[in-house]
Amino acid sequence: MNKGRIEAFTDAIVAIAATIMVLELKPPKVNTVAALLDEWPVFLAYLISFSLIYIVWYEHHNLFQRSGVISSSTYFLNGVWLFFLTLIPFVTAWIGESPNSVVAAVTYLLVMLLWTLAFQLMERQVTLDSDPHKRHYRLPRARFNFDLFLLGGLVIAFFVPFFAIVAVGLFSLILIVRMFQHREDSNG
Amino acid sequence: MNKGRIEAFTDAIVAIAATIMVLELKPPKVNTVAALLDEWPVFLAYLISFSLIYIVWYEHHNLFQRSGVISSSTYFLNGVWLFFLTLIPFVTAWIGESPNSVVAAVTYLLVMLLWTLAFQLMERQVTLDSDPHKRHYRLPRARFNFDLFLLGGLVIAFFVPFFAIVAVGLFSLILIVRMFQHREDSNG
Amino acid sequence: MNKGRIEAFTDAIVAIAATIMVLELKPPKVNTVAALLDEWPVFLAYLISFSLIYIVWYEHHNLFQRSGVISSSTYFLNGVWLFFLTLIPFVTAWIGESPNSVVAAVTYLLVMLLWTLAFQLMERQVTLDSDPHKRHYRLPRARFNFDLFLLGGLVIAFFVPFFAIVAVGLFSLILIVRMFQHREDSNG
Amino acid sequence: MNKGRIEAFTDAIVAIAATIMVLELKPPKVNTVAALLDEWPVFLAYLISFSLIYIVWYEHHNLFQRSGVISSSTYFLNGVWLFFLTLIPFVTAWIGESPNSVVAAVTYLLVMLLWTLAFQLMERQVTLDSDPHKRHYRLPRARFNFDLFLLGGLVIAFFVPFFAIVAVGLFSLILIVRMFQHREDSNG
Repeated sequence: MNKGRIEAFTDAIVAIAATIMVLELKPPKVNTVAALLDEWPVFLAYLISFSLIYIVWYEHHNLFQRSGVISSSTYFLNGVWLFFLTLIPFVTAWIGESPNSVVAAVTYLLVMLLWTLAFQLMERQVTLDSDPHKRHYRLPRARFNFDLFLLGGLVIAFFVPFFAIVAVGLFSLILIVRMFQHREDSNG
Repeated sequence: MNKGRIEAFTDAIVAIAATIMVLELKPPKVNTVAALLDEWPVFLAYLISFSLIYIVWYEHHNLFQRSGVISSSTYFLNGVWLFFLTLIPFVTAWIGESPNSVVAAVTYLLVMLLWTLAFQLMERQVTLDSDPHKRHYRLPRARFNFDLFLLGGLVIAFFVPFFAIVAVGLFSLILIVRMFQHREDSNG
Repeated sequence: MNKGRIEAFTDAIVAIAATIMVLELKPPKVNTVAALLDEWPVFLAYLISFSLIYIVWYEHHNLFQRSGVISSSTYFLNGVWLFFLTLIPFVTAWIGESPNSVVAAVTYLLVMLLWTLAFQLMERQVTLDSDPHKRHYRLPRARFNFDLFLLGGLVIAFFVPFFAIVAVGLFSLILIVRMFQHREDSNG
Repeated sequence: MNKGRIEAFTDAIVAIAATIMVLELKPPKVNTVAALLDEWPVFLAYLISFSLIYIVWYEHHNLFQRSGVISSSTYFLNGVWLFFLTLIPFVTAWIGESPNSVVAAVTYLLVMLLWTLAFQLMERQVTLDSDPHKRHYRLPRARFNFDLFLLGGLVIAFFVPFFAIVAVGLFSLILIVRMFQHREDSNG
């Protein structure tokens, strides 16, 4: 498949998913600083979801940089990954409106976890495709830790819903730090 | 015409049509699992329409891969194809809201059928353009079966509206299976 | 300037303007064929605006194909052209809702006329830029006829508002016919 | 990093942010010229925000033209810049609805100022990356004047809210004039 065209198509979907979330940011009903600040959960949820999408795009970029040919399996898993990504505007709007709802918090983290798992399956596929002799694939330790982290966040969110947004914020931060480390240590 | 630019323009429209459907996914009125699950037809309709668009993009990609020069006729038919594609968010929203409406179900399948026919006309054009000596074009058997399948679904939807969404779901699955077969047998 | 990047940026805006118009297509209040058909002006307005944008994109494509370097003036006029283009979803929604309103009809045609004039200024600029010795530019007769046509439509729309949508439909058809002639006669 | 892919991804977000603002332009409640003209602050705010985004894109284009490799730091700052950009539809909708609100006016200018500062940090990073021996970076005088200008506008907006929109309109004009000067004097 034409890698450049798949990348551009994927990036368009990522860009739209990241940007249509701003349609949730509505001018406050009354024009006071208090009314604006009252909307802080909506803004915080937007900031965190936008940051995560932006930094995960970097991971997608790296994955496709090192992939040679895009196989049907990779294309399929890319679609699964994009599908969960497009649910982020929905869960972000929900958690922004209802930051103390357990159902919203758990759904938010569940979408993030499934999105992350879809990425890991795609990463596995790209790795296997690049080396036809390879039979076994071991999930990198860092990826495994991400899954544990999000799963842990999901459990905590059952008791403290607001932790969902904190967990995804921390997850973005970890990925950002990793990106800067990656610069210094290309084997990272 | 500049094939790369037409592809990028087309892909942007496809990406937007696939992604703005998520604007239909609204947080439930009350924050309960029951309220979320009550929205299942909206989510199912979204999942199926997104999958279909994503997998049909693969067919478009293949068609343009094997086309040399893009003629005015192909550009025109590409526009017809894009027009029906942009109606998918509308019919998806409708069938998600009214999964038991005969009118919604038939309109949904009609749009899918017209979209499919537009693709087949475009495919015919690309084939004729690539070989100026060719006068006759025979619709591939698989394409003909797709038309019959959607037409059959349309007839059944008059009696069982919900079958519309099942039919399009099955159609996506068939195209996905075909994509994986295509990998193993490049003559497929 | 980097022509490929300007083209891609322009095309993204064109694709979004053409596609967000579908957000105006709402499922009918009641699920009957009559209720769906009652919405015909909204659908007709969408069909005509989408067709026009799609076919004018072809003109933009041709213009940029024959331009060498993109000057600041061309970039500026491209922005003016894009600005009027982005007003099309607004006037299309308006005329679809109020097909018999004189104000809606005249505004619709006025936006189309200004958009067309912006294109002609950009075309003039590209022509002058491509030949530094050229001092004078004569508007091609076809372009002049388009202006007259839209201006005439605007006058008629004062008396028969619905003519606005007919005029733009005819304008799209003329451009489509021209595109097919262009194929056979590259000097067109 | 793959500069072309980052540019395309960035441009898609810029194009969406610039274009979804038109969703704020609603057909007037009654179909009269007076009702249309009554909406002038919404249209003016849209015109000015669209112009600014379009002309700042030109600055982004120039910056990436002269950058060699995109570092992690540049990618990160590009994300900060995009984040503030995506807030523009929100503040534009707000100031269009409430052109005389101090809170709306100050928020509008604050977003513009933060967006501008993010650009300057990114410009500094690109400059430092392009010359590893360079340790110190001096903000160009023109950039410093822009900051002062927006800061001054912010102060005035506390007393005359409507000045916010005038200030951003003037800012766009200055950048447009600079673009035309840049053409004649490539050292600008």
